Amino acid sequence: MSIYLNNAATSWPKPHIVPQAMYDFMVNSGANLARGTAAKRDLGTMDLVLNCRELLAEFFHSYEDADPRYVTFTSNITESLNIVLKGYLKPGMKVLTSSMEHNASMRPLRRLEQKGVHITVLPCDMEGVLSLRDLDKVLKEDSFDLMIITHASNVCGTVQDISGIARLCREAGVPLVVDSAQTAGVLPIHVSDLGLAALCFTGHKGLMGPQGTGGIIWKPDFAEKVEWFIEGGTGSFSHLELQPDSMPDKFEAGTPNLPGIAGLRAALQWLVKEGPEKIHARETQLGLRFIEGVKKIPGVILAGKQTMEGRLPVFPLNFTGRDHAIVAAELVERAGIETRPGLHCAPVAHKTLGTDGMGGALRISIGYFNTEKDIDCCLETLASILSEPLKA
Amino acid sequence: MSIYLNNAATSWPKPHIVPQAMYDFMVNSGANLARGTAAKRDLGTMDLVLNCRELLAEFFHSYEDADPRYVTFTSNITESLNIVLKGYLKPGMKVLTSSMEHNASMRPLRRLEQKGVHITVLPCDMEGVLSLRDLDKVLKEDSFDLMIITHASNVCGTVQDISGIARLCREAGVPLVVDSAQTAGVLPIHVSDLGLAALCFTGHKGLMGPQGTGGIIWKPDFAEKVEWFIEGGTGSFSHLELQPDSMPDKFEAGTPNLPGIAGLRAALQWLVKEGPEKIHARETQLGLRFIEGVKKIPGVILAGKQTMEGRLPVFPLNFTGRDHAIVAAELVERAGIETRPGLHCAPVAHKTLGTDGMGGALRISIGYFNTEKDIDCCLETLASILSEPLKA
Repeated sequence: MSIYLNNAATSWPKPHIVPQAMYDFMVNSGANLARGTAAKRDLGTMDLVLNCRELLAEFFHSYEDADPRYVTFTSNITESLNIVLKGYLKPGMKVLTSSMEHNASMRPLRRLEQKGVHITVLPCDMEGVLSLRDLDKVLKEDSFDLMIITHASNVCGTVQDISGIARLCREAGVPLVVDSAQTAGVLPIHVSDLGLAALCFTGHKGLMGPQGTGGIIWKPDFAEKVEWFIEGGTGSFSHLELQPDSMPDKFEAGTPNLPGIAGLRAALQWLVKEGPEKIHARETQLGLRFIEGVKKIPGVILAGKQTMEGRLPVFPLNFTGRDHAIVAAELVERAGIETRPGLHCAPVAHKTLGTDGMGGALRISIGYFNTEKDIDCCLETLASILSEPLKA
Repeated sequence: MSIYLNNAATSWPKPHIVPQAMYDFMVNSGANLARGTAAKRDLGTMDLVLNCRELLAEFFHSYEDADPRYVTFTSNITESLNIVLKGYLKPGMKVLTSSMEHNASMRPLRRLEQKGVHITVLPCDMEGVLSLRDLDKVLKEDSFDLMIITHASNVCGTVQDISGIARLCREAGVPLVVDSAQTAGVLPIHVSDLGLAALCFTGHKGLMGPQGTGGIIWKPDFAEKVEWFIEGGTGSFSHLELQPDSMPDKFEAGTPNLPGIAGLRAALQWLVKEGPEKIHARETQLGLRFIEGVKKIPGVILAGKQTMEGRLPVFPLNFTGRDHAIVAAELVERAGIETRPGLHCAPVAHKTLGTDGMGGALRISIGYFNTEKDIDCCLETLASILSEPLKA
């Protein structure tokens, strides 16, 4: 028996057409991209990759009538964030971020700091919310070259007011980069209306694709200002020993993860048909059932927001007198309930939420394919563990 | 009908257990790596990734009794080469390479040159061979911080005397990095005996795995000298806002391509069972059939080596009075024969071979799953195309 409540790490299961599309690509297609002739197989790969770019550009409402050239494929959102941050930020530049970021952006930022980039970490409140008033104030007091923020916390699910943040950044003329690891596929993100400089996304969470996929949606004039990150063969401009400047080749070198892209395309097709609104509504409904239940269990300490308002169904729990990691192990042992204890690669977020002193939290993260039964079983098992006397 | 003779771009078909393992991972496992609890699913993913590292370390005879920690997974060999070159080479350093390199190393090298790294490109002969005498001479005349060389050319299949090159580099105290894109899985590579600083490999060619996989086998003390490339969450040392220094986490951030690693592991299991010697012998046998046949066709110009001695079955062809790209298109049209015309992302190699003035060559690259019938059909179709009168 297994109940999967670790969807913030990776969504599972995937829609069945995802593994099927990967399998079909491997068995029936298999050609590399732009590295063959114009045989049916080669054209099939080109069509697959272009079509996946188009679906992503449309899905996120990107610039210039969703020009697919400004979609970059990466192997995960960590690579996406590294490409954007390291390619744009130069010593002396100033970058603004929040105290709810994941190490996928904090670690590259701290590395850049060692090289002379100035980093301002805006504190969020105990619910993980960045105050627009604070942001407005700091943007008026100082000038910044870039702002990077996570759309929703991977620790506590708190969703930032991204349209408010984007408006303030536009007014201040600061390019805004959004880490959508937890929101892409679940919450609407209108890249061009928001005026984002870059949207970084992962394929294997809300977008329901396979691990090994991710990408960037670029504002064209921002992409021009970002340096290359990985140089190599692009199957284009092969006479040049320098990486080409044209998109999408500029940021894509070497053979792409083609079975991964086949899976991601199938996932996007499924997602568009199913409807992100429906998915989000269902996840919120399950989240509501969980939060109402969990608050009734004695000994549970829920960090961050205490309602379903402005959040995703991601819940960081601690327990009076009990180590959350031991509770996590008990959940597996007793009912096959899979969660994630610890710091979730986001130490600054745990500090903000006040859970760093507890070694983090036990994170419950609900997905579209969970059921009411899953939630109830998790609540019952938690209640049963916590009802037992503490060991001396 | 389809005859696949573009195995130097990507091998196809893959052993059937490769797509099957990917499918099984997606459907039955699916957990992320080190980002969950110790549920069966989580342990399965950890076991998969560790086991694939072990298989790679053993396959390439890596250091310290094949310590799996010194195997880094990347999304392709281009990323592997970028990690090694950009992490090690600093302005003022001197690097030695050959005139047969792929853009996967030439483009990062030329980029580094713009930042003050000195690059010496040793000329190879018209067969693509680097002379050990020339190398010895240059190593004695000057000091170098690194040498990087491709084991076998992706354009003409010429195999370098890697043990001779490695010996000279060891004697001169120059760390040697090998690009094994065309040889891994086909020719034996004994990383620790050769004393390589790093072996870069791709998963989707001779190793028979899926696109989206690749890696690096490190000499431990060399890995220590190489800077991080991509920083982010590692599922380890999560309290730190700086990338950890310990292997394998140092060079791996973000969610790995887990279905890809599942496919690569299955491919390695198949490969070890099948035997690389058997595969190489079979490919050479098919290559011999091809080269003997193609040399009899009037109007064919074969660049590089004229025999099967010291080469892989990768053949760059041009044609008297005919554009090779048109011949490539005719091969598809008439018999579904898939090849690759052009420069193969290796302009410097085409310059060396004298084919740059012809816009490159039509490359025929034979794989383990090709048959005598495939070769004969290709030869017959080529002969038939070339027997037709030239258009005015």
